[in-house]
Amino acid sequence: MNFQISNKIAGIKPSAIREILKLSADPNIIAFSAGNPAPQAFPVEEIRRWSAEILEQEPVLALQYSVSEGYPPLREALEEFLQKRYGIAKEGNQIIVTTGAEQGLDLICKVLCNEGDQVLCESPSFVGALNTFRSYNAKLVGVEMEADGVNTEHMERLLQTNPRIKFMYLIPNFQNPTGITMSLEKRKKVLELSAKYNVPVVEDNPYGDLRFAGEDVPSIKALDTTGSVIYCGSFSKVLSPGMRVGYLCAPQKLTPSLAVAKQCTDVHTAMLPQLICHRFLTQLDFESHIARCRSIYGEKYHLMARCIGEEFSQKVQVTTPQGGLFLWCTLPKGQDVMAFAQKALAQGVAIVPGNAFLVDEKESTTSFRLNYATPSQQDIQTGIAVLGRLTKEM
Amino acid sequence: MNFQISNKIAGIKPSAIREILKLSADPNIIAFSAGNPAPQAFPVEEIRRWSAEILEQEPVLALQYSVSEGYPPLREALEEFLQKRYGIAKEGNQIIVTTGAEQGLDLICKVLCNEGDQVLCESPSFVGALNTFRSYNAKLVGVEMEADGVNTEHMERLLQTNPRIKFMYLIPNFQNPTGITMSLEKRKKVLELSAKYNVPVVEDNPYGDLRFAGEDVPSIKALDTTGSVIYCGSFSKVLSPGMRVGYLCAPQKLTPSLAVAKQCTDVHTAMLPQLICHRFLTQLDFESHIARCRSIYGEKYHLMARCIGEEFSQKVQVTTPQGGLFLWCTLPKGQDVMAFAQKALAQGVAIVPGNAFLVDEKESTTSFRLNYATPSQQDIQTGIAVLGRLTKEM
Repeated sequence: MNFQISNKIAGIKPSAIREILKLSADPNIIAFSAGNPAPQAFPVEEIRRWSAEILEQEPVLALQYSVSEGYPPLREALEEFLQKRYGIAKEGNQIIVTTGAEQGLDLICKVLCNEGDQVLCESPSFVGALNTFRSYNAKLVGVEMEADGVNTEHMERLLQTNPRIKFMYLIPNFQNPTGITMSLEKRKKVLELSAKYNVPVVEDNPYGDLRFAGEDVPSIKALDTTGSVIYCGSFSKVLSPGMRVGYLCAPQKLTPSLAVAKQCTDVHTAMLPQLICHRFLTQLDFESHIARCRSIYGEKYHLMARCIGEEFSQKVQVTTPQGGLFLWCTLPKGQDVMAFAQKALAQGVAIVPGNAFLVDEKESTTSFRLNYATPSQQDIQTGIAVLGRLTKEM
Repeated sequence: MNFQISNKIAGIKPSAIREILKLSADPNIIAFSAGNPAPQAFPVEEIRRWSAEILEQEPVLALQYSVSEGYPPLREALEEFLQKRYGIAKEGNQIIVTTGAEQGLDLICKVLCNEGDQVLCESPSFVGALNTFRSYNAKLVGVEMEADGVNTEHMERLLQTNPRIKFMYLIPNFQNPTGITMSLEKRKKVLELSAKYNVPVVEDNPYGDLRFAGEDVPSIKALDTTGSVIYCGSFSKVLSPGMRVGYLCAPQKLTPSLAVAKQCTDVHTAMLPQLICHRFLTQLDFESHIARCRSIYGEKYHLMARCIGEEFSQKVQVTTPQGGLFLWCTLPKGQDVMAFAQKALAQGVAIVPGNAFLVDEKESTTSFRLNYATPSQQDIQTGIAVLGRLTKEM
C-alpha cells in the first residue's frame, strides 16, 4: 500500500524540541532543551490524596464518558479563578476544558481558519503552537519581538497587508522561547489593532503564575472591552503537564463552535485528571503553592543567570526574564548556532537552536533557548560551564 | 468582534447524540440513547489500587511530560495483546497511543486527507467518526449495509467512481449503530478491493471483546498481507471511557506522520490514564475480566431482546447483535422516526433517531438506535414497555 500523506502534515518536520527531548531522556545528558516544568513543584502528596478520594467517592464519574465542554464544577472553578487571579469577567465568556493548552490552540485554528488563511505570530514563538497552525495549512506571519514585546508598528503593517490573518497568537508573559514580557502599553495597543482590523487575539498564558521578579501586568483578556480575546490557560506549569489539562476562556458566541470541534477531536478530556484539577483549584491553598513554585523557579533562574554571568563570553546577549521557564541567548552575528548546539550535545549538554522557533525555520538566527526549570542545580552549574567554554572558543 | 467560523466547523451540527446525552443526564429519563458502556463492568477496585501504586512508586513519570507516541511499555503491552488476542503481527506495524479512539480517527484524517478528499463509510455509521471526518472537509461516501456487513458490490462501484476516496472506515464487529458483524468472506473481499484500488482500510474495533454469542471472526488487520490496514482500538469499552485512552496499530511507514499529527494535537495522552491502562494489560487476568463484561452485556442484551419480543409491534424490525452495546430498530416505511423519538422523550425514554448516523443526515430513515448496556434492568423493562406501546399506536 502506498500511503499519500496530506499536504498539511507532509510539510511539518517532527518538532525539533521533541526530537531533542528524546535524546534528553538519556540520563547522561544535561537537558536545557526541555519544555518541562520543575518536578519538585508537583504537589505529589495532594495529587495522591485527591486521586484516592475521587476513586473512592465518585468512581463512576471518574471512569464514565462525560460532556465535551468539560466537567461543569471545574469550569465554574476556573471562572472563579480567572476572575479572582486575572480580573477576567465571567460575563460574556465561557470555559472549554481542553486536553492540554496545545489542544486549545488546535481547536481555535480548526474553528477560525480555512485552508490558506493566515495566523500572526510572534517570531520567535512556541514551536508547538506554530506546528499546530501549520497542521491546518495556515500561513504564519511573523511579527518582530522587542525587549517589551511585539513591535506594534510592524504588527500594524502586517495587519494592513495580510487580509487573511484570522487571529494573532501571543504569549504576553515570559514568552516561550525568549522569556520576554509584553508591556501594558503594548497590550493596549494590541487590543486597539485587534478592534481596528477585526482580528481576534489568542492570549496564551501558561507561565503567568510563575513570576519570581517584578510586578504582574494585566492580562490582555482583562483589558478587552470588545470581546475579541480568547484566553488559553494550562495546568501544566502550576500542577502537572502529564495530566494534559488546559482550558479556553472564550467569548460566548465562539464556544458552541469550539465545543463542536472538541467533540470531533477527542470527545472530552480525561476525567480523572479533570477531577484532580478541580480539587487543585478548590481545596489547595493556591497562594502558598504558587509561592513555593515561584521560589523554586526563581532560585533556579538566579543560579543559571549567575553562572552565565561568570562563565559566558561577554559577546553573548542574554534576556532577563521575570518568570517562566526560559532564557534566550544570542551569539554574535555570523556564528553558526546549529554547530554550537551540536558541539554542546557532544559534550553532554542539550540546548534548542533558535531556528526551531522561527516562523520561517530557514531564516538565519544565532539564538538558542535554555530551560532552567527542569535541570538540577548541579546540572545547571556543570552545563553552563560547558556552554561557557564553547562561547569563549568562538 | 465578529468571528468568522471556518467552513470545516460551520457545517457540523452539534452531535445529536451528545445533545441527547445532555438530556439523558436527567435522572428521570431512561437513556437508551447513550454510547456509554455498563458502569458495572468498570474494574473500580483495581483502578483504585493501580492509581495509588503509580502515584506512590513513579509520581514524576505520571505527572511530567512524555513522548507523543505513548508510554513505551504500554505500546509494547499493546503489541503483545494484539498479537495474542487478534493475531495482529508486530512486524511491520507500530502502536501510537491516542486520547480515545476518536483521536485516532482524527489523526488518520489529518494525515491522509486533503481538503475535498473523500472517505468511504458504512451508512449508517458511528456519528462521532462521521463528524470527525466532516471537520476536515472530507466528503463522505456511504456504502449500503446488509445483514452480514457492507454491500461489497456497492463498495466496488463507489471505489471505481470516486477517485478521491483516501480510506474506508469500517466497524466490522457489532457495528455502531446497527450491531451488525461483517462476515469473513466480506472482510476478505474488502482487503481485495483495498489492494485493487490502493485505498487503505481503517478498522475500528471498540467492541470486539464484548462478544456474548457466536464465534469470533478474524480481524481485517490480521488477514491483511499488503500493509493496508490501520487498526483502531480503545480501552473505553473494556476498561473505562473516562480515561480517554485508545490506540492505533498502523503500518510502520505511516507512524512517523501520525506521530507528527499527534504532537500538533495534544502533545501526548495523559500519563496517569496510560499507566493505569498498562497495568490493566499486564496485571489483570484479562480473560476473566472480559468474561465478566460479556456476561453483563449478554444478560442486558437478552433482557432487552426478550422485552422487545413481548412489547414491540411485530411490524418493527430489530437486529440481533452477538456483542457490543447497540440494537437497531426499524419502523415500517412511512413512519416518522423523529416524531416517534419525541413522543418517547415526552414519556421519559431517550432514543437516537437513525438520521444522526447517516452519511447524509437529510436522507430519510425509519430506524433508531437502542443502547442496552447503560440502563438498569428495571429501566430496560420500563423503557421498552413505553416504546412498545408507541410502536402499537403507530
